[in-house]
Amino acid sequence: MADSDDAPRVGELTPPERTLMGPGPSDVNPRVLRAMSTPLVGHLDPSFVEIMDEVQELLRYTFRTDNEWTIPVSGTGSASMETAIGNLVEPGDTMLVPTNGYFGGRMASMARRAGGEVVEVDAPWGEPLDPADVEAALAEHEPDVFGFVHAETSTGVRQPDVPALTEAAHDHGALVIADTVTSLGGVELRVDEWDIDVAYSGPQKCLSCPPGASPLTLSDEAMEKVLSREEDPRSWYLDLSLLEGYWGDERAYHHTAPITNVYAIREALRLVAEEGIEERWDRHERVAGALKAGVEAMGLEMNAPDEYWLPSLNAVRVPEGVDDGEVCAELLERYDLEIAGGLGDLSGEIFRIGCMGHSARPENVLFVVTALGDVLESMGADVDAEAGVAAARRHLR
Amino acid sequence: MADSDDAPRVGELTPPERTLMGPGPSDVNPRVLRAMSTPLVGHLDPSFVEIMDEVQELLRYTFRTDNEWTIPVSGTGSASMETAIGNLVEPGDTMLVPTNGYFGGRMASMARRAGGEVVEVDAPWGEPLDPADVEAALAEHEPDVFGFVHAETSTGVRQPDVPALTEAAHDHGALVIADTVTSLGGVELRVDEWDIDVAYSGPQKCLSCPPGASPLTLSDEAMEKVLSREEDPRSWYLDLSLLEGYWGDERAYHHTAPITNVYAIREALRLVAEEGIEERWDRHERVAGALKAGVEAMGLEMNAPDEYWLPSLNAVRVPEGVDDGEVCAELLERYDLEIAGGLGDLSGEIFRIGCMGHSARPENVLFVVTALGDVLESMGADVDAEAGVAAARRHLR
Repeated sequence: MADSDDAPRVGELTPPERTLMGPGPSDVNPRVLRAMSTPLVGHLDPSFVEIMDEVQELLRYTFRTDNEWTIPVSGTGSASMETAIGNLVEPGDTMLVPTNGYFGGRMASMARRAGGEVVEVDAPWGEPLDPADVEAALAEHEPDVFGFVHAETSTGVRQPDVPALTEAAHDHGALVIADTVTSLGGVELRVDEWDIDVAYSGPQKCLSCPPGASPLTLSDEAMEKVLSREEDPRSWYLDLSLLEGYWGDERAYHHTAPITNVYAIREALRLVAEEGIEERWDRHERVAGALKAGVEAMGLEMNAPDEYWLPSLNAVRVPEGVDDGEVCAELLERYDLEIAGGLGDLSGEIFRIGCMGHSARPENVLFVVTALGDVLESMGADVDAEAGVAAARRHLR
Repeated sequence: MADSDDAPRVGELTPPERTLMGPGPSDVNPRVLRAMSTPLVGHLDPSFVEIMDEVQELLRYTFRTDNEWTIPVSGTGSASMETAIGNLVEPGDTMLVPTNGYFGGRMASMARRAGGEVVEVDAPWGEPLDPADVEAALAEHEPDVFGFVHAETSTGVRQPDVPALTEAAHDHGALVIADTVTSLGGVELRVDEWDIDVAYSGPQKCLSCPPGASPLTLSDEAMEKVLSREEDPRSWYLDLSLLEGYWGDERAYHHTAPITNVYAIREALRLVAEEGIEERWDRHERVAGALKAGVEAMGLEMNAPDEYWLPSLNAVRVPEGVDDGEVCAELLERYDLEIAGGLGDLSGEIFRIGCMGHSARPENVLFVVTALGDVLESMGADVDAEAGVAAARRHLR
């Protein structure tokens, strides 16, 4: 073992200056970064209690809900996901999950670890769930919980007609968990109006906030199930009945909240409130529309049909004879620009280009269309880079 | 439900400027706050992989270990705690936990949720474990895992002679988990030399880093037990076999790391390396020694005898006729100074005054001794505030 004077020599933090147009994190607004350099107060300080209240109010606004149970979970998006599933699914419960993307598989794994049985409703990667299939699966399995992904980050698919799904689930007595990681704050989402029981999200997508405190909301009915469990949830850290003591009226110590991440999400959510949530959805659609117009005019193909195009995550087919990994590496190398390749069933078949929050700006979109066209042309792909840029510009006018 | 234009009006983030001398978080060095305002790179960016390597190297140095398995867990201290227990304890395993403070109870709760049986070794709150009692409990129960708290934040007790505990545990075939939340980076801790199998910590104590990414280290032997489990750990988010894919050689996506918190802990650990770990332990002892001299000269009594005094968390007996809550509130109100009262068995009986990391500075200690003496005198307690300040000053010379 090293001696005490053998301390590692690690230099100043100087990461490259990237433009983040991948599946998240997205570019962070400088106001949020500044909020993160605010000196800390204690997690039980009366002034922090006030900040917690404000964050909850702003989260409710952004989720379009009146749910009392609306909090940032102390971890990244997967932590709020596991909080939802691990508390709602009791041993012996059955959870219905989708197979049409990466995150349905993660739901299944979490539900099994919570002691639940998993049943599936199928759709191919790159397509949304068909409400008729969901109805059939509900009738066949009569699950306790139904989970679906509102905005599939792995496929760039937006699940349309959410109320059809929630209504079917409720008719069969199932509570509904929605994965809204890539929709919250960027794509139309109405938790109360659409009768979603539980929704979780991440802060580093359309909220453009560094990861570390992740949005979660539960209806009273869902929280009732959680609070009347026979057995403790299998995670102490993510046990909502204990978190209730801290975020509820009691303000009792559970764990030390990630204070700085709460500061950050507060500022990110203030930006949502200042812009207006519906205006923000419109901006994403307009700016991502330019991105879509650009790549299509260039000669590339979107993976998802227009009816379920997801503005925040654009899945673009990789053209023949091109290696997606090489393109991503080249964009990073030449342009300090991050986009990503596909996952799972779509590995090697799509580029995933995010257009989220502070990254959903005209300058970013023009940049990504220009750079992508340039790199593809230089690799000999059959694309018309100039036409792409021109179309994106026209769309933004 | 509110309309979209009914956005909450929440003002700029302007928390009060506190001096943090409670049980954590401690005051954060401005360099760490500045690091947190660094724009993000992606969690799979080659430059971030390099940053991960540096953080791991700095963590090893600080833990005094060569353990390959040394990472920051994506959550606050309780997340690294649950990662340790939830991965090491398999259903049917027995874990031996201490009863001499708040955090032994938390260990028990986490071990039960992991599917383990819990057995206890007793000592009163405010005292360390007696190695003879540990030996007896090991012989009686032959547990698979033994957990102890190196630095009890709830009682201000440092567990002396750790090697006696680890040797006894290993003689009985138990792996040892050490809670080093309030010792890492502030109090002598030698993971390898003391034969600790698993140690977890929090960043917001003696590392003076905002909470959100929490140190964890495991020996090869402990990691072998984790990787050869028959059943998946009950948390997906904290599953070390999956985290191994991200932090190990593969660098595969598991969850989005809390990038900014990793930036922060990197800078906080750089400060440890610059100071030197042993020099840092010495500073904590010297500066906290002034705090102890000050409160004792004032006429107050430390809760722990000198043999197991914990420099980073000073438990001071509340004098007769004084309400601890009122004192804490008054210090916050008049001085913007945070200290805390007792927990559990010591509720109402002790003040808990932290002296951690960037808060372990002469100016902070002189301030807390002065302010505490002042408030206690104004409440009519039988203390000599001036004598306290004089003694603290003398100690610092």
